[in-house]
Amino acid sequence: MTQKMQKSSEKTKTLPKLIIASTEESADLLYAGGFNAPDPVLYFEAGGEKTLVVSPLEYARALSEAKPGVRVIEHTPFLKGKKPSDSLAAGLSRKLGIDAWMVPAGFPFGEAEKLRAAGIEVYCCPEGSLYPERQVKSAAEQKAVLKSQQATEEIMRTFRQILIDSKINAQGYLEYRGKVLTSEFLRAELEAEFKRMGYTASRTIFAHGPQGAEPHNLGSGPIRANEPVVADIFPRSDATGYWGDMTRTYVKGKAAPVVKRAFKAVLAASEAAKKLLRAGVTGAAAHQAAADVLTRAGFATGTGRDGKPCGFFHGLGHGVGLEIHENPRLSPLNPNPLKSGNIVSVEPGLYYSAWGGIRLEDLVVIRPQGIRCFNTLEMELEIG
Amino acid sequence: MTQKMQKSSEKTKTLPKLIIASTEESADLLYAGGFNAPDPVLYFEAGGEKTLVVSPLEYARALSEAKPGVRVIEHTPFLKGKKPSDSLAAGLSRKLGIDAWMVPAGFPFGEAEKLRAAGIEVYCCPEGSLYPERQVKSAAEQKAVLKSQQATEEIMRTFRQILIDSKINAQGYLEYRGKVLTSEFLRAELEAEFKRMGYTASRTIFAHGPQGAEPHNLGSGPIRANEPVVADIFPRSDATGYWGDMTRTYVKGKAAPVVKRAFKAVLAASEAAKKLLRAGVTGAAAHQAAADVLTRAGFATGTGRDGKPCGFFHGLGHGVGLEIHENPRLSPLNPNPLKSGNIVSVEPGLYYSAWGGIRLEDLVVIRPQGIRCFNTLEMELEIG
Repeated sequence: MTQKMQKSSEKTKTLPKLIIASTEESADLLYAGGFNAPDPVLYFEAGGEKTLVVSPLEYARALSEAKPGVRVIEHTPFLKGKKPSDSLAAGLSRKLGIDAWMVPAGFPFGEAEKLRAAGIEVYCCPEGSLYPERQVKSAAEQKAVLKSQQATEEIMRTFRQILIDSKINAQGYLEYRGKVLTSEFLRAELEAEFKRMGYTASRTIFAHGPQGAEPHNLGSGPIRANEPVVADIFPRSDATGYWGDMTRTYVKGKAAPVVKRAFKAVLAASEAAKKLLRAGVTGAAAHQAAADVLTRAGFATGTGRDGKPCGFFHGLGHGVGLEIHENPRLSPLNPNPLKSGNIVSVEPGLYYSAWGGIRLEDLVVIRPQGIRCFNTLEMELEIG
Repeated sequence: MTQKMQKSSEKTKTLPKLIIASTEESADLLYAGGFNAPDPVLYFEAGGEKTLVVSPLEYARALSEAKPGVRVIEHTPFLKGKKPSDSLAAGLSRKLGIDAWMVPAGFPFGEAEKLRAAGIEVYCCPEGSLYPERQVKSAAEQKAVLKSQQATEEIMRTFRQILIDSKINAQGYLEYRGKVLTSEFLRAELEAEFKRMGYTASRTIFAHGPQGAEPHNLGSGPIRANEPVVADIFPRSDATGYWGDMTRTYVKGKAAPVVKRAFKAVLAASEAAKKLLRAGVTGAAAHQAAADVLTRAGFATGTGRDGKPCGFFHGLGHGVGLEIHENPRLSPLNPNPLKSGNIVSVEPGLYYSAWGGIRLEDLVVIRPQGIRCFNTLEMELEIG
């Protein structure tokens, strides 16, 4: 951190706060305002008052949906008062007599430039989020994530049951209800089921065989017997905005010996990390504990012969809340101790282009003496 | 525009371009890179080369999904080369010998501050988007939006059929397949159907009775006979990223006289706007044409007795493409002439808290001599 930035970060502590974003872009906005805004709105906190500034289009809805204690005003008066060169935010700042704002790291640069051009200073909050306390989940938030994770687990059980109910045809492909089972069918049907339950899931991963070697490959085409299928399912509640996130890897039939060994190693890595995790343990230490298990089991991380990364080349986990990937991270890059109330994924994995991937993921909440796991579904490999 | 900003806008024309965003946050990124990035990635154009910089986690997938002509590199070398205080973007800029970037208006302010702290200048592109040419859709893009709109219309027809198939029970509520029909049921079932078709829809509006007076009220609870139901349906293709968007307002049974008059006025406003629309007409003129029809029909716009806005208090339409709401706008705030190849919604509406709302929305593509409408479903009010 440069000296200039240190000075700003001291100053920002007492500054009024400003967000300009849609809820999709800013978890801070949903956290503070409680109002689901599909288009960018303006939110500020100044002099102890919290205020949403919305268009006439959204005014009545914002009035009924905003969190208690959040005032809702219509933007028209500020548009009328502003100079032609002003933005809405500049006009508002001038009316309020505010000459400096603290904003989140994701604040739109164009809006910051317009504020500065109008003589209003803008400081980036030191932690990126205006509400770093979002990392520590309240009891109500833990309940919301648990609920999303239970919905996720329900869909994972449905997927598992589809594998159980599938037959293996003469060509070695899975057949479900008389049709060859594909990643596309699973994604369409299970994401449809989520919508029925009040959740939105997109880009759900059903990556089979070598596809699973790319952690974010969605998977495509017909699924074979005896190959691993990585199922990574992560829906968001339409009602609360909180996410669920879980992964299992199954083989319908018999897994190859290397896949069995990899599964055993990833399961052991998950267990080692869960055993270590508690308040005070750093994100880096948790990652290292899992990575060590994988290395000791003989699975090297590096670059494969095809020039692509292989082994365990992503972080062990990430915070989950109003963002699917948020702080704190379980990663070599996070030297900070975890806090009681953090909710993180624990998802070690192994990836080799020769046979695919194994990833196993649960969500856990950090407690002073350990964790509470939000998942109950067993981690198993072969499905009969 | 201040003089300082004018200078920057001249300078930016020749600057290399930089984006740091997820695809969800930046249509520019999807437009330029073709790669669907759930987490923020870095994209730049410099010296005629287009490059995506991604984590090892995304490397193999980006290689196979990026647009032809877009180079994919892994971010690790730039993390290694950078100073401890540097961001990835700053480390990259230093390695490339770049001392100034042009960025989109939505570029994250925190990243801009880190670049500036590292001595690298950042300019906001004058039009907000790095690719203002996105407003003029190519033949392939028109086809993609048309396809999304056809899927939207298919679901609207399903909704209409549900109304036709519903009975009116003794209490005056609609019953469908033996159950009272609710906004929640329609949203869950029809959004589920979209997922089956490869689209994601959320916050689909089925606002009935007075709920319809708030243009973005989602609607809730049981639907009655003889009240207007505003159905605003806007899915995004999971495959292409292009949106559809359409609205119809139906009454199951008999509409009240005021609702009939409002429907007739909104239909006439839509027709007047469509008749006027062509390349060269301004967004403001199109809006005014529709607004005039509504005013002349006796429907005033202003503030109702309840302090909430009433009448026609939103813009007539907006661009639709990789963003659901993008430029050009059909609004009093857009004095610029439309161009051939723009795709815009035409969606006049009337809203009064006493009885609800009427909104009718089609998508049209602007042509030199008129429009092509992407919808074929009749605009009608009463459903028997």
